[in-house]
Order: sequence, then structure tokens, then C-alpha cells
Amino acid sequence: MSGTLYGIGVGPGDPELLTLKAHRLIGTAPVIAYPAPDSGDSFARGIVAAYIPPGVREIPIVIPMRAARFPAQQVYDDAAGDIAAALSAGQDVVVLCEGDPFFYGSFMYLFARLAGRFPAEIVPGVSSLGAVTAAARRPLIARDEVLTVLPATLPEADLERQLAQANAAAVMKLGRHFDKARAVLERLGLTGRAIFVAHASLPNQTVCPLADAPRTAPYFSMIVVPGKDAHV
Amino acid sequence: MSGTLYGIGVGPGDPELLTLKAHRLIGTAPVIAYPAPDSGDSFARGIVAAYIPPGVREIPIVIPMRAARFPAQQVYDDAAGDIAAALSAGQDVVVLCEGDPFFYGSFMYLFARLAGRFPAEIVPGVSSLGAVTAAARRPLIARDEVLTVLPATLPEADLERQLAQANAAAVMKLGRHFDKARAVLERLGLTGRAIFVAHASLPNQTVCPLADAPRTAPYFSMIVVPGKDAHV
Repeated sequence: MSGTLYGIGVGPGDPELLTLKAHRLIGTAPVIAYPAPDSGDSFARGIVAAYIPPGVREIPIVIPMRAARFPAQQVYDDAAGDIAAALSAGQDVVVLCEGDPFFYGSFMYLFARLAGRFPAEIVPGVSSLGAVTAAARRPLIARDEVLTVLPATLPEADLERQLAQANAAAVMKLGRHFDKARAVLERLGLTGRAIFVAHASLPNQTVCPLADAPRTAPYFSMIVVPGKDAHV
Repeated sequence: MSGTLYGIGVGPGDPELLTLKAHRLIGTAPVIAYPAPDSGDSFARGIVAAYIPPGVREIPIVIPMRAARFPAQQVYDDAAGDIAAALSAGQDVVVLCEGDPFFYGSFMYLFARLAGRFPAEIVPGVSSLGAVTAAARRPLIARDEVLTVLPATLPEADLERQLAQANAAAVMKLGRHFDKARAVLERLGLTGRAIFVAHASLPNQTVCPLADAPRTAPYFSMIVVPGKDAHV
């Protein structure tokens, strides 16, 4: 009998925002895999570190920081091979995913390689979007409003076109694209409605009006523009 | 000392998709409030029923099914009054919210009335979006894709305009607007990419290609159109 592959959302950062289901599976799986940078600690593993029992086999999936698409695919091929061996031996494998597994998550690359051959289940988690909205203390959308979620990595003209027609918006993946996103929002007259949130749900959480945001933004930060009907 | 108001996301339906934090707060709060229909059981309360200790004071917030905006506001005024009295007496109050509190949630109406006068905290939860994507076993968005989340309650022309330019989409609040949403997706040639999910994460969960969907859809159902880059 094969083991089961579990893609588990570990939430935005606060270990207490893990679901009961993720907590149970992490506490019982013999093998745990997670994305890791080529230097430093895995963010996903750090969130649940206190819940990992001793003696578990760990498979870090090391993505080189500036990998082009081709080498990253090789990394997933290799990780899928290691995970497939454990599944074939009858062991369940838990893959830790920041936020929610299928919301811009890299778990899809493992799922694509393994779900056809082994039992697989996705355990949804609290997304960064929910954590950011909670941190901002502002509802995001209400009634008939449309929410646009977009990565700041888009070309400037695409960002502007999308934001110009949005009722409510969340701009993700800021990092080195922060200045571009800020300039677009300013041009559209949206700065006054926009809130900047970094490290939502973590002790170093930052929340402020976009106009007061720091000069640089980490990758784990977001700008939200709540809908006009979502007032408090 | 005032009590604290907690708006708690209880997730999409599976009681195990509650967060550890929500579980702790529900297990310790002396007062629990939740939305309830004018006949039948509260969905939010049902999700966490097993975690509510005996002896807790419960405040059902009964929204008449076909309430116009004005009477609904009266309901929130009354509920806010009851909750304010408990908070003033030093009791913490947990308000149970389906999915995530600030993602199309009615908690905003209580938050608007109470957060200025009492300590208040939002505890994000697993949204229906995450549960639906997990149920569909399809990633929703990847790389530079833009996600459009829209309610089927929109006028048909607005639905069509929004969906025509979406990379990936989630159409919520189907219910009696299902036929309209289905017709728009068909006209746009999106039926083949669209997945229908009802009651995600619950025992009666239904997942199928939109073309094979039942004739009617419950309110708690969704159509997702995954992005083209989010392949598996």
C-alpha cells in the first residue's frame, strides 16, 4: 500500500494559525518535506517547528535563490523522486506550504509530478490575504464588489490597467517591485485608500497607510485597497 | 477592564479546518455570538459545535432571510448592544464567522459598531476559496497571473466584462444566479476550463466539470476557472 501525499497549508506565519488538521498530520507523518532557501532557514518549517516530533525524516527542497525556470524544474524532479520513494515504501509524506498550497504556491509542481501515481490530498490553510486583511483591521470586499489579486511582478502597464478597474485589490509579491506598484497606485489616486502590511501575523508585523510605508518592502508584504462598500 | 471582541474565521465547513487559535478562543470565551437563519441551524455554530464548552452564553444573530438593508442594520444594532453589554462587563466575546471574517463576511457590521469602543481582534480563517481549490485538486493561480474573485449577484454585463479579462477567476454566491453565471462562461468559451464545487470540505462535497454540474447550485457553491499557468 502506498503512502499518501499531503500538501498542507501552514498559514501566514503565526504558528497558532495552523489548522487542527495540519497539526494532526504534521504530528503523525513519518516524512516531512518543505521549501528551503539555499542559505538560511525554511520559513514554512519555522512556522510549525514546535509541532514536528523527534525522529521524523525531513526532505528540504532547496530552490536556488535566482534559479531560472529550468534548474528549478530539476529541483522539483529530484524532490519528487525522493518523495515518491517514501510513498512507494508506504510512508505518508507531508509537504509544508506557506499560506495556502494552491494560492501562488510551489506545491503545484510536486502535485503535478506525483498526484497521478499516489493518493494525494490538499489541506487548505489561512492565506496571506486573510492575515493581511485581519492585520489591516479593514474588511476587504462586501456585497457585489469584485476583488482583484495581482502580483507586483506584472509589467507596469498591466498593473495599471488592472488596478484602474478594480473595486478592491490586493497587490502581492512586492519586494523589488514595490516602487513600481506604489507609483501606479499614486497615479490612479488610490494611495489614500491603500494599506501596506508586512509580515502579517508575525511579531514583526507592520501595518500603515501606504503613504507612510517604509522605502523598501520585503517579499512577504502586501498592499490592500479595500472596496468602497467594505467600510467599518 | 473591558472584554475583547474576537471575530473568528471558522473555515469552510470541516471542523478540522479550524485554526488552533480559533479552537483555543472558542474553548475559553464566556460568550459566543454567531449569525443564524430565522429558521434552522446556524452554519457557523454547527462547524464548531463540538468545541463549545457547556455553560457558555450564546447570542444568535438572526438575520431574516429576505431582509432589506434597513431591517438588517437594526439586527446588527441590537446584536451590537447585547455584545457591548457583555464586553463592558469584562467578558470576552467570540463572534463565529463562516470562512474568513473579512472576506465578504457580515462580521464587518459588528466590527464597525464595536471596534472603536472595545479592544477587538480578527482571527483569519481558511476561506471558501482555499477549500474549493483544494477540493478541485487544481492550483488556482501561478507566476504573474491575476485572480478575479466576483459574486454571481453582479449584473450579467458586469460579470461578462470581468470574466472576459480574467486570467483566473472564482465566481461566488451562485444560488439563484447560477444560470446567469453559467451562460456568461459558456459565451466566453470558458466552460471547458471551469470547475463547479459545492459544499467544499464537507461530507456532501460535490466537484465536477462545470459542463456536468447539476441544474441548480446552493448558495455555498463556487465556480473556479484556474489560470493557464497553474497547470498540474
